[in-house]
Amino acid sequence: MGSKRTSRRELLKSGGALAGGLAALGPTTASAQLSPYGTPVHDQMADMAAHDAPMIKGTKELVEYGQRSHYVTSMRMAHPMGGRASPDAFGKTFHIATPLQDSVGVITPSSLHYVATTRGAFVPDIDPKQHTLMIHGLVDRPLTFTIEDLKRLPSVTRLHFIECAGNRHNGRQKTVQESHGMTSCAEWTGVLLSTLLKECGLKSSATWFVAEGAEEVKGASSMPIAKAMDDCLVAYGMNGEAVRPQNGFPLRLMVPGFEGIFHTKWLRRIKTVDRYYMNYNDYGHLEKSPKDAALAFQIGPKSVITKPSGGQQLQGRGFYEISGLAWSGGGAIRSVEVSTDGGRKWNRAEIKETPQRMAHTRFGYPWNWDGNETEILSRCTDEIGQQQPTREQVAKYWNVPFDRSYRVPGLDNSVMPWRIAKDGSVTNGLA
Amino acid sequence: MGSKRTSRRELLKSGGALAGGLAALGPTTASAQLSPYGTPVHDQMADMAAHDAPMIKGTKELVEYGQRSHYVTSMRMAHPMGGRASPDAFGKTFHIATPLQDSVGVITPSSLHYVATTRGAFVPDIDPKQHTLMIHGLVDRPLTFTIEDLKRLPSVTRLHFIECAGNRHNGRQKTVQESHGMTSCAEWTGVLLSTLLKECGLKSSATWFVAEGAEEVKGASSMPIAKAMDDCLVAYGMNGEAVRPQNGFPLRLMVPGFEGIFHTKWLRRIKTVDRYYMNYNDYGHLEKSPKDAALAFQIGPKSVITKPSGGQQLQGRGFYEISGLAWSGGGAIRSVEVSTDGGRKWNRAEIKETPQRMAHTRFGYPWNWDGNETEILSRCTDEIGQQQPTREQVAKYWNVPFDRSYRVPGLDNSVMPWRIAKDGSVTNGLA
Repeated sequence: MGSKRTSRRELLKSGGALAGGLAALGPTTASAQLSPYGTPVHDQMADMAAHDAPMIKGTKELVEYGQRSHYVTSMRMAHPMGGRASPDAFGKTFHIATPLQDSVGVITPSSLHYVATTRGAFVPDIDPKQHTLMIHGLVDRPLTFTIEDLKRLPSVTRLHFIECAGNRHNGRQKTVQESHGMTSCAEWTGVLLSTLLKECGLKSSATWFVAEGAEEVKGASSMPIAKAMDDCLVAYGMNGEAVRPQNGFPLRLMVPGFEGIFHTKWLRRIKTVDRYYMNYNDYGHLEKSPKDAALAFQIGPKSVITKPSGGQQLQGRGFYEISGLAWSGGGAIRSVEVSTDGGRKWNRAEIKETPQRMAHTRFGYPWNWDGNETEILSRCTDEIGQQQPTREQVAKYWNVPFDRSYRVPGLDNSVMPWRIAKDGSVTNGLA
Repeated sequence: MGSKRTSRRELLKSGGALAGGLAALGPTTASAQLSPYGTPVHDQMADMAAHDAPMIKGTKELVEYGQRSHYVTSMRMAHPMGGRASPDAFGKTFHIATPLQDSVGVITPSSLHYVATTRGAFVPDIDPKQHTLMIHGLVDRPLTFTIEDLKRLPSVTRLHFIECAGNRHNGRQKTVQESHGMTSCAEWTGVLLSTLLKECGLKSSATWFVAEGAEEVKGASSMPIAKAMDDCLVAYGMNGEAVRPQNGFPLRLMVPGFEGIFHTKWLRRIKTVDRYYMNYNDYGHLEKSPKDAALAFQIGPKSVITKPSGGQQLQGRGFYEISGLAWSGGGAIRSVEVSTDGGRKWNRAEIKETPQRMAHTRFGYPWNWDGNETEILSRCTDEIGQQQPTREQVAKYWNVPFDRSYRVPGLDNSVMPWRIAKDGSVTNGLA
């Protein structure tokens, strides 16, 4: 083709205009930028004719349920934090991280949604016709619901992220998949838990609830009843189809904005109780008072640049849109700022769609790279005014000695820097 | 289990309360409804222990890219209107319809997105590294863009439906997949066509543009330049990953709200011109003036009930949420009404999420079925005030004799009735 380099040169020149607001381009300026590959149209058409691609053969399977291109190889990976178990190991903590470096928009494809399990990559193989959800405890009438029962009730559809509390970064990760890949976002559909609790006649003495999934360790955790009556969702749908087995088929409890571990997969039982119950999943909360624990369940405001990010390569100086994701357990994202000079100056980024509550929000910032070494960062603020902290602030909060690459001992929503080298390579700025 | 029937009975009773606004349930009413299966908790727990499901074995493939449960068998089908070609036939019109009867929320999973092709189920197998988009014609500097070039430019992410102009219904279809399955909705990510045209220096003499895809018949169609500068999108992303081959990998032109045929797949060329160009895809527009044609490109406001719909079965009288989808080429959906008495009384339905422009919008209506035969229908109004017409109104517009089951000769956005029989079976109300 030979046009690639020329096209880049054109982009490079126009980059300044783009960064300046997309308005400075006009016919006069433009003619000065005319590139040598503006060949006559009939030559281009001849060029086009040579490009007819081979075909993907139609099959019954591809008609019924399509697949991605074999050229697209984006995939999840066993996460370093829990990746010691092999896919066929059973009974070990196992984490599978989303390839955020390839993400576009805010939906994570269900096939690429992150997974955390307590027994390798094995998941229950549940027959939805046999599965029921029981609600009991401090209710007037305990009830069980089949999946079909739930689908008859008023439904809600909401975009929500889930994030594993262990989604931490320091200087050791090479890519954003390793540093931030334990969060994903999907369109969830189901019945509000409050609808079900009202059907069962929730007693006023109920102050907490415990959820149980169909797995040995049950996945149970105590949660405040106020959260149940606010926005918890018993989800049977995910991105327009049934919840996937790795994400809890046929039912997953969504607890928007809370740590991932509360989003109980393969949900089969909810018990309303009058006190905080400790259980398997409380290893991170044991030392806290019930009230402190409840407040600590919520994921803080967090953002990360996904493009360019660690392991990617800039193709020379010029225009690049810096793109990333922001989310918070505190509600919708209000604003995102990006710094392209290591944190000295912060610039307002563009929010790409109307931010949803407890959902990934895509942001973009137009950047004209001058070819010099630098560091790019993002930080966000949510609708209740919480701002994502710097790593220095997080260290101060935990009262630990600060070092760029230290490991945050608790939930880590600190700012992530990516270093851009002169050759355009992108690496972890904490390394 | 034995609890299924009891649970239904409970739902039946509570149905009245739900339909009345979810507020009439309280401890007093509730105790009167207490069902016999409210067994003590320790018995329930014993019951639960017996339910541990078999496991899906972890594999490298399932870690990298997950799949749906083998219990979920929802699938697309060759559509009756173009289904004469078998999947391995080449060179024939072929339509693959989305299983809307199983849809939840507004996202159509990419694997289930409808497809219309002109050569059976075959699709181009394009290497994205070799693929370029050329923009030429009435511009100051024709340019070609690689996929990587496009990904450097400012991106937009938008939820948009696409609908085939042939998505018609009359008395012949048994399911909503057959009657309405040639529409789907996805989250599309890419670059605004206006961004690219500004880069190329669009000449003021350009009034139309033609788009060409990598297929024999090219898929080209003339579109007004005003649409290009408004909201057309050169999309490389679909539901958070690369556009699927059946939907145009690696690039699809999105022309929000226009007939599906304009959403050029495998996009490789856009030419800006100063007049309306007729071409292969104009078979439906040939007789019109360019101005009439441009106005006729837009899909009218349309809605359909997806649950309950043809082929489904109600499980006795009681509460059911009537659920469906509404969309319009004229903008966002403003309101949806549902009738449960054959169209005599229309009731405001609930819109499930903030309606997006030219996107499927999920609606719900709480309904307490009394067990008698009836007909349920939906109709919508969009943000510019267009209301979905009845079939009588459409017949009048086309000046053809009216018959319930007549075939609309043009775009068909008429109201769809589903008939509920005494036994709970649901059938096409036009049959």
